[in-house]
Amino acid sequence: MIPARSQEFPEKPGSLLIEGALTGEGLIDIFVSEEGIIGAAGPDAGRKFRAKADYLIDGTRSVALPGLVNTHTHAAMTLLRGFADDMPLQQWLSEKIWPLEARLTGKDVYWGTRLACLEMIRSGTTTFQDMYFFMEEAARAVDAAGVRAVLAYGFIDLGSEEKREHEIRATERFVTHIKALDNPRITAAAGPHAIYTVSEEGLSWLAGYSREEGIGIHIHLSETEQEVTDSVKAFGLRPPQILDRCGILTSRTVAAHCCWLDKGECELLGKRGVSVAYNPASNMKLAVNRAMPYHWLTEAGVNVSLGTDGCSSNNNLDMFEEMKTGALLQKFYWNSPTLLPASAMLSAATRGGAEALGTGTGILAPGHPADIILLDRDIVCNTPLHSISSNAVYSCNGSAVTTVICQGRVLMRDRYIPGEDEVLRQASAAAADLVERTGVA
Amino acid sequence: MIPARSQEFPEKPGSLLIEGALTGEGLIDIFVSEEGIIGAAGPDAGRKFRAKADYLIDGTRSVALPGLVNTHTHAAMTLLRGFADDMPLQQWLSEKIWPLEARLTGKDVYWGTRLACLEMIRSGTTTFQDMYFFMEEAARAVDAAGVRAVLAYGFIDLGSEEKREHEIRATERFVTHIKALDNPRITAAAGPHAIYTVSEEGLSWLAGYSREEGIGIHIHLSETEQEVTDSVKAFGLRPPQILDRCGILTSRTVAAHCCWLDKGECELLGKRGVSVAYNPASNMKLAVNRAMPYHWLTEAGVNVSLGTDGCSSNNNLDMFEEMKTGALLQKFYWNSPTLLPASAMLSAATRGGAEALGTGTGILAPGHPADIILLDRDIVCNTPLHSISSNAVYSCNGSAVTTVICQGRVLMRDRYIPGEDEVLRQASAAAADLVERTGVA
Repeated sequence: MIPARSQEFPEKPGSLLIEGALTGEGLIDIFVSEEGIIGAAGPDAGRKFRAKADYLIDGTRSVALPGLVNTHTHAAMTLLRGFADDMPLQQWLSEKIWPLEARLTGKDVYWGTRLACLEMIRSGTTTFQDMYFFMEEAARAVDAAGVRAVLAYGFIDLGSEEKREHEIRATERFVTHIKALDNPRITAAAGPHAIYTVSEEGLSWLAGYSREEGIGIHIHLSETEQEVTDSVKAFGLRPPQILDRCGILTSRTVAAHCCWLDKGECELLGKRGVSVAYNPASNMKLAVNRAMPYHWLTEAGVNVSLGTDGCSSNNNLDMFEEMKTGALLQKFYWNSPTLLPASAMLSAATRGGAEALGTGTGILAPGHPADIILLDRDIVCNTPLHSISSNAVYSCNGSAVTTVICQGRVLMRDRYIPGEDEVLRQASAAAADLVERTGVA
Repeated sequence: MIPARSQEFPEKPGSLLIEGALTGEGLIDIFVSEEGIIGAAGPDAGRKFRAKADYLIDGTRSVALPGLVNTHTHAAMTLLRGFADDMPLQQWLSEKIWPLEARLTGKDVYWGTRLACLEMIRSGTTTFQDMYFFMEEAARAVDAAGVRAVLAYGFIDLGSEEKREHEIRATERFVTHIKALDNPRITAAAGPHAIYTVSEEGLSWLAGYSREEGIGIHIHLSETEQEVTDSVKAFGLRPPQILDRCGILTSRTVAAHCCWLDKGECELLGKRGVSVAYNPASNMKLAVNRAMPYHWLTEAGVNVSLGTDGCSSNNNLDMFEEMKTGALLQKFYWNSPTLLPASAMLSAATRGGAEALGTGTGILAPGHPADIILLDRDIVCNTPLHSISSNAVYSCNGSAVTTVICQGRVLMRDRYIPGEDEVLRQASAAAADLVERTGVA
């Protein structure tokens, strides 16, 4: 565990004043109300609010950024980190990943998600969107960790009516459960896994259900070339066309990957108001062989956000590393050193993500939920500090983050996170036990 | 600055015993003599050598790896980190990089190289190969920092005889200076910049000189498609053919980049015993549009190592991030999820680098120089710990490194590096002053 620089930790709820942090607008103070909303942000906020603040946070040797937003992951797969890599996709899935996933318990998902939340807090992510199983347990982990999340039960019917009925009930049960929690940090989304695992009947039901419930839709789209060619072979249609005729392409939808979209499909997503989650590290590791067409998407007005994907195909949840990989991959694949510059990448990982999920805002301004991270200025990756966004995207990784605030609550201060040891120990034990009872080496 | 977990720091030379560190061969102890050589490494080395050790290092919650070897960088360019990014290559060079480089002083290079050494120590690199200017100052910085380095004066004659004479004298002066230092950690190499900046006369002189002096050759090769097409247009030959007829392709040569080699050229490098430095992050950021052909190189028996390139085109020197980017880029570009697996990537970044540079060994075994790093096991990126090499390559970044030993001297212990504050402060000031006197925004 990385040790704390300070042992003072604001355990109880209260208002906060961050003093003298550097932002793109110069040195500012940020006042956060006890309700977790930014009350003031500017060079003189400190003078006005110092007397009102329950806690003071010294930001004078820090850069302040909005908390990062990870719009596509499978959080509990942290337990599988490093379990199997560098294998052909089908062999990897059938010999390694699926046997383990078949034996996952709710307890595993709880500790796997706690580990994921710990990792995200350490590396400056305050909000994530998840799709997995045992999602009530994931919600319990998110609640305990204090981060913000949009959770979806991964709906897979494989064309079977019986399985579809099961998945419909599981989705309804999960959404009802999340709504009953009435936790401002936790919302539910519909989670159709992909066109190759969900029937059109399933997709159409989820489209209608999500509209009625006013919740988002989280889906994988055109990740691999095979997904596209199989779709054309089976249906005579490309994946976005199938989703569109089922009503899945909406302004509440986040489509992950989107590596193999053509230009017309980017325009369709733009027309429908769909947001895209870009997953560069996963796309590279799994050799999908084409980078998401960022330029076509933005030309079409599509909101592009950033996600890490799960730890089996990344193998971490560090959004700073992901920003670098993402900015580099666009330049490399599309052969343009000016494509996806640092400031745009940082914006996609903050405001773009918040917009995609309709939760948090990715902006450090009064009236917005206080999801704030502080980065160390007295550290190699911020030396020299010619540019905040360039250093954040290209030079620093998550280890530069010292302090994390979500909805006004301090989750990490001076690199100290209460309860970290137990999460590491329990997640480690859960992973070892999972491998042992699965009997896969 | 990341705070120390412990204030005990072995300031004086002495023998060391690292106890109970995890390696691919299980838990071992490593005894290091006062001369900086590994005396014993194995499960019972502690029992035999505990009484002889001047210093004990608790490795029980650590993974031990050989120090990483960065075979291609321009260390002092840390001062330009984040100064200019996301621009077309020619505009970036002519409007931003060259004006600053024209005003660089020896003092700038000293503090830029100190900052680079600090960054490398923090992220587990014990050896690097450098090519830049004011290299006596770079050597002074390497000596002060305690790392191992192969240093080359960047030889650029642009076809001018007058300039060539100057570069020859500068090279001779520098090599003589380094040899006179008689420092086992610092060696000189010849540094022909590239075929497009050095005449054939210059290349041939460097080939002969390096052979007589028994030193290595460090050169950029086939980084961009333009380098290849320009070479064919001007000389009717591709870059490796030009180098070969000048005698530059030797078993003492490290060729950086090599993105645009064809299969026959890989075989030529194999025949000549050339080592290659793979620079994936730089290649992606500068949009070179082709990944180094790792499979052809290894089929041809070429030793592949890893480098970060300079901070203007990366923008950090973290070899853990570079391993991940490198392993991912091969899979993505060459469309194979099994290409360059984690264990091979880790080997390239340790043994491959040591072999390329002929200094250090990249092996934790008796009789070898003690270049050793310890990674934290009680940290998110090593939880769970299904695989040491997978976590090192795909999950961890340099912040996992807690302790760094080079030639038997402890350079970082429990994340504490003596004198870190001053290096950050001086490098920061040098960078700000450089920008100010250059007058480029």
